[in-house]
Amino acid sequence: MLLGVPSIINADLLWVLGAMGHGDVLAVVDRNFPADSVSRHTVSKRLVHIDGVNDTQAMKAILTLFPLDTFIDEQVQHMQVVGEPDTHLEVHTEVLAECQAVMPDAAMGSIERFAFYEAARQSFAVVQTSEDRPYGCFLLTKGVVFD
Amino acid sequence: MLLGVPSIINADLLWVLGAMGHGDVLAVVDRNFPADSVSRHTVSKRLVHIDGVNDTQAMKAILTLFPLDTFIDEQVQHMQVVGEPDTHLEVHTEVLAECQAVMPDAAMGSIERFAFYEAARQSFAVVQTSEDRPYGCFLLTKGVVFD
Repeated sequence: MLLGVPSIINADLLWVLGAMGHGDVLAVVDRNFPADSVSRHTVSKRLVHIDGVNDTQAMKAILTLFPLDTFIDEQVQHMQVVGEPDTHLEVHTEVLAECQAVMPDAAMGSIERFAFYEAARQSFAVVQTSEDRPYGCFLLTKGVVFD
Repeated sequence: MLLGVPSIINADLLWVLGAMGHGDVLAVVDRNFPADSVSRHTVSKRLVHIDGVNDTQAMKAILTLFPLDTFIDEQVQHMQVVGEPDTHLEVHTEVLAECQAVMPDAAMGSIERFAFYEAARQSFAVVQTSEDRPYGCFLLTKGVVFD
């Protein structure tokens, strides 16, 4: 517990968020994602659990500390629904709204399921929530702190 | 680098500060302190360096995140000058002022040099600054985040 830090951001997640630099990617994934196996391939090899919250709550908390990358067009990517690459689910809409709450022109792309697994293996670390909505899996690119 | 977090608070220090709970003690020590050897006996066995800043700058940054313990009379202890247990040096006055800036009734006690080493071994972790003023060694007790 720290002053001004949302209570769901535990010490291990603080380390991950703080150790990341500009352009590093954070995977924030739902409860069905193969987080343990994927995280072993990441830069930090870290898996951090935030239990008892969904992706929307996790993203809101993370974005109090984590700057989105203003150098790119799509700051966040979601996993595509299998066979429906253009479908946007409620969880995707909610997470994009959290991004736009801190960066009004934030945009979300999408990645096919197996390509998402590969991209997540290239990320810095994996954060797994208790999100129970399917396809609640995201890649967030870290930006720069200017002041 | 994270939004709202002082730039001298690196990821390893964020982990230490966040992992501590109520009543845990943090040692913040000067450049002459035997930080590596002492830290190996601490709860976390962690030594975190904040280079290029003195104790006053380090304390100011740490106290933006770290609540002092309101349950005890002396939230911070300094190492006593050898042979002069009642002497308060400039570095002690400055650090107490940083504590009082966030907690007006904060008070500072003092501990004899070798007793300080032993107390530091019982702490959660050691943070070593580039402080070059002698006896710039402190023990801070963590309090509670209420909101």
